[in-house]
Amino acid sequence: MNIQDYIRDISDFPKPGVLFKDITPLLSNHKALVACVDQLADLSPKGIKIDKVIGVEARGFIMGSMIAERLEAGFVPVRKKGKLPYSVVSKSYDLEYGEDILEIHIDAIKKGENVLIHDDVLATGGTAKAVCDLVTELGGVVVQCNFIMELSFLKGRGKLGVPVARLLEY
Amino acid sequence: MNIQDYIRDISDFPKPGVLFKDITPLLSNHKALVACVDQLADLSPKGIKIDKVIGVEARGFIMGSMIAERLEAGFVPVRKKGKLPYSVVSKSYDLEYGEDILEIHIDAIKKGENVLIHDDVLATGGTAKAVCDLVTELGGVVVQCNFIMELSFLKGRGKLGVPVARLLEY
Repeated sequence: MNIQDYIRDISDFPKPGVLFKDITPLLSNHKALVACVDQLADLSPKGIKIDKVIGVEARGFIMGSMIAERLEAGFVPVRKKGKLPYSVVSKSYDLEYGEDILEIHIDAIKKGENVLIHDDVLATGGTAKAVCDLVTELGGVVVQCNFIMELSFLKGRGKLGVPVARLLEY
Repeated sequence: MNIQDYIRDISDFPKPGVLFKDITPLLSNHKALVACVDQLADLSPKGIKIDKVIGVEARGFIMGSMIAERLEAGFVPVRKKGKLPYSVVSKSYDLEYGEDILEIHIDAIKKGENVLIHDDVLATGGTAKAVCDLVTELGGVVVQCNFIMELSFLKGRGKLGVPVARLLEY
């Protein structure tokens, strides 16, 4: 099963000049979806108990919960500003196409918990770095940032300062 | 395992006078999360092969993908306007706190496919009805709308005209 065969290139989305990697063909094929999540979970560090898997809104929610199931961890959503109902910590960040604010519930991660952060794409790294900072602020330990794909020409990996794993590289 | 024990009430979110049902304690507890998804998948109609499970942005993505795995179905995201990169069909709708537009990729559902729609909450039914309409427009058959909880005082169920299943009622 070659995951790459299920990623569709979309030109000029979300703005002119950007080649967007569309994962919906991968999601809609049951066998490809399961194989992809199996492979993502297999990338998690061996010998370390993951307590929480974070999925980053919104695409990171889809496989993040499935990875959490495989790792016998809880699932934690990190969301855009104003979407989480309880008390939060916030972090503003630059992203590929602008600027935004991410939030996490203050009780989502306990001190010393091991956290795996999942999102679909590592691009400039702005989003993932903000999520790492949120976890650290709550006293958690980011043991891996885990992506379906890395757009390595955007050099996001260097920003993170934590182990990075991904299935595909562009 | 009583799923209800993991739902947290938040007063005055997203606006004054609304009592919001927060599912993040449920998500963050591995055993509760898995038990909830097992129960949701068990609610799916017996003897009917589900081809696609739709998750409604954003909270519907979290368990929607996990339900799809259990039903051996593909997963299809229905998203807010402008978020899906390929050609879409759109539907505007009234929701509990305003109005919005939902979209689905035109190739997400094939004619005659059996579709289960998942979201966390059935409130006024505006969102779920819009998703049903999108599926029908693509030629799919909605075999069930599947929710963690139903706010039955909002009478959303009557709007849908398809089978509704849920674990909890408020």
